[in-house]
Amino acid sequence: MRIAVLNPKSEFSNELQAKLNNLGDITYTESRREYPIEELTKLVNGAEILAVDPDNLGGFEKAKEPLTKVMEALPNLKGLALSTTAYGWIDLGYCKKRKIPVSNVPGYSLESVAEHALALMLNLAKRIMVTDRKTREGRYQLEMGFELKGKTLGIIGLGNIGSRMAELAQGIGMKVISYNRSPRNKPGVEMVTLPELLRQADAISLHVTDSDEAKNMINNDSLSLSDEKRSDYC
Amino acid sequence: MRIAVLNPKSEFSNELQAKLNNLGDITYTESRREYPIEELTKLVNGAEILAVDPDNLGGFEKAKEPLTKVMEALPNLKGLALSTTAYGWIDLGYCKKRKIPVSNVPGYSLESVAEHALALMLNLAKRIMVTDRKTREGRYQLEMGFELKGKTLGIIGLGNIGSRMAELAQGIGMKVISYNRSPRNKPGVEMVTLPELLRQADAISLHVTDSDEAKNMINNDSLSLSDEKRSDYC
Repeated sequence: MRIAVLNPKSEFSNELQAKLNNLGDITYTESRREYPIEELTKLVNGAEILAVDPDNLGGFEKAKEPLTKVMEALPNLKGLALSTTAYGWIDLGYCKKRKIPVSNVPGYSLESVAEHALALMLNLAKRIMVTDRKTREGRYQLEMGFELKGKTLGIIGLGNIGSRMAELAQGIGMKVISYNRSPRNKPGVEMVTLPELLRQADAISLHVTDSDEAKNMINNDSLSLSDEKRSDYC
Repeated sequence: MRIAVLNPKSEFSNELQAKLNNLGDITYTESRREYPIEELTKLVNGAEILAVDPDNLGGFEKAKEPLTKVMEALPNLKGLALSTTAYGWIDLGYCKKRKIPVSNVPGYSLESVAEHALALMLNLAKRIMVTDRKTREGRYQLEMGFELKGKTLGIIGLGNIGSRMAELAQGIGMKVISYNRSPRNKPGVEMVTLPELLRQADAISLHVTDSDEAKNMINNDSLSLSDEKRSDYC
């Protein structure tokens, strides 16, 4: 089995490298830099499994087209393994047409991302970044934040990360409402429609996958529904 | 009853002003600026109750001496009401000698302070301020933070705010240990000595009152006990 990994070998522990070697003949890229397509197609030559991170393909925004070109050069491709939770950056239609199964990493950084979202929400509520900046410029002034306890958090997307975010928010005493494409049953979380969420929430946390469907889900129109509450802290 | 309030009248709602008026003859300061002692002693003339905030006395750091001078000019003083949780900024010995009861506001901003401490801890763990600063300067780079779940928080001072901080930290999955002068019994919180806390904690949150006893409780010597853990994220 020929396996091409678009990730530097140096990022894998010896143990992981040994595990991969047991599976077949492995090729890695040398760094995370963006590679020209010609160079990539040579590198992955003959691969049956392609493991990809967006970096060698120019990053999330640019990766779709070069990745499809690389796959077109692999007639024996049997599987595509993404190093990401998101799969909106690849051409799923193309994979379907060729019947290439795609795997992602749904649990990747679940805890870290939820904690990070909590950190960013607390930052806004407590006006920490703006206070830090002003203080470092020698112009400290009292900035009034607000308490999150008792406030309503609206979670859009109640998947793995959104569910953990719900627990963290409940842990600090927030009320949690959520919108998800399909209804979910999560203790203490009230499922609502998206417009209801936008109207009721004091804070919104977005945990949807990167997909065409989710693009512009939050825009000026949707935010205008919560305008009154937002205005103070933008 | 003559009552002097070292706070601007404008900061009290009409309802509160009416309540105060029911208690006696009230004098307020006009702003939060620092007043010269002569001006203050004239203003509070004859007061039996003195309600004080540190601002009119030059702030926490400077207030002790001018406040004692103001009290010396009030032979009929029957009570001192602080607008703060802390009472380390007043001369408690002087009040004791004159048998003047002192009241503070132990529950003041309990929730806000605990949430703020959580926000600051998350900021350090996720390296948010440093990332924000670099990004605004056009030099974004990936900063590796760490997860707080499963880490140990050492809370010094398990009073009202420290106890709430313990709950918030437990809410995000941290293990909590605590040092308090007198042992406390708080669910899930292990009481330890101060050196033990400094050695074991991945993060330290300080919730002691402003007092001479607490001064320099955390210094280079005490922090050297946790040096190894700290070094990465200072």
